[in-house]
Amino acid sequence: MSNKKDSILRGKFITFEGIDGCGKSTQTRYLKEYLDKKNIPVKITREPGGTRVAEKIRTILLNRDNMELKPRAELLLYLASRAQHTEEIILPTLMDGIWVISDRFADSSIAYQGAARGLGMEIVKNMSLFATNGLVPNLTFFLDIAPKVASERMQMQGKILDRLESEAESFRQKVREGYLWIAQQEKDRFITINGELSPEEVWKQIKHII
Amino acid sequence: MSNKKDSILRGKFITFEGIDGCGKSTQTRYLKEYLDKKNIPVKITREPGGTRVAEKIRTILLNRDNMELKPRAELLLYLASRAQHTEEIILPTLMDGIWVISDRFADSSIAYQGAARGLGMEIVKNMSLFATNGLVPNLTFFLDIAPKVASERMQMQGKILDRLESEAESFRQKVREGYLWIAQQEKDRFITINGELSPEEVWKQIKHII
Repeated sequence: MSNKKDSILRGKFITFEGIDGCGKSTQTRYLKEYLDKKNIPVKITREPGGTRVAEKIRTILLNRDNMELKPRAELLLYLASRAQHTEEIILPTLMDGIWVISDRFADSSIAYQGAARGLGMEIVKNMSLFATNGLVPNLTFFLDIAPKVASERMQMQGKILDRLESEAESFRQKVREGYLWIAQQEKDRFITINGELSPEEVWKQIKHII
Repeated sequence: MSNKKDSILRGKFITFEGIDGCGKSTQTRYLKEYLDKKNIPVKITREPGGTRVAEKIRTILLNRDNMELKPRAELLLYLASRAQHTEEIILPTLMDGIWVISDRFADSSIAYQGAARGLGMEIVKNMSLFATNGLVPNLTFFLDIAPKVASERMQMQGKILDRLESEAESFRQKVREGYLWIAQQEKDRFITINGELSPEEVWKQIKHII
């Protein structure tokens, strides 16, 4: 665990990362059911959003009408949402000894805004650490999947794409490269799993690590 | 002028700063009328806000229902609004050779979030430079006024106070100290004017500097 609040954070903080369609929601559900069975209290949350104010920010971010949103403004909105989410929900929950599982967290900003939007991975990482006041997950599962496979999955589900999901495949290829950059830097925390395997196979690997 | 885009920014960028009730709006109007008479094209704008997306962010920031907004999230929302405002409005306008007068800009974040909220003036300054991609005003007028005098003025105008304006006087005293810190650091750009003088007297001083 790499954050300075270790002593007072009794719950574990686990995040799922990957491009949309990689299977994050399914694995979150599996993990929640598993922890429930073990009587480990757990809270599920997501980004952007997770609090009343952060959900308002989420509305601006994901609304397809806001196509004029500039990359720096986009990043700063994600960070604002994360700052509120961290201080209002995640930290108090962890301090209560409850585990937190979040669908996306800081690594999403590094991959999407830092790598794919070209703002720079290192600077985005540092700005995100300011937003979270230094909080880093205990463990992150990156479900790695080819953008083409993810698109096919989402189309099969008949999903209406939001502003970010409708980005081109080439954009999501850069997102993936951003995630792989993090994987190289933080081998202990950031675990890459082949998201193209069956959900059961992916879960088997996650369970083994947990 | 202290920014790297000097060569392509043909318009001048002037900002007004100070606590609410210091007379920014009145002086903005005087300056606009003055430039109009000299046939200098000028655009008036304000923060937070100034663009369609930024006005949505402004709604979150100033809504009194959002009292749970945390200082870091608050700062990042201001920066998001500023990033959008800078790239969508201010830079293109300056490149067209039009002057821009903004009611508040980066110095407000340094004073309100850096000093008064205690996030740190230096770090807020650097994060704001990221948001504006390095843009700094050519000239800033800080209308310095005692918080007590500003409160009396606003009460006389029968103004309904928004989330920030309803902060205590002690908060606004810290804001003032933040502005005075900037004044010490950037003597050439950041001009302190006694905002307790009559509007005509304040304007005389501003006109002299312009």
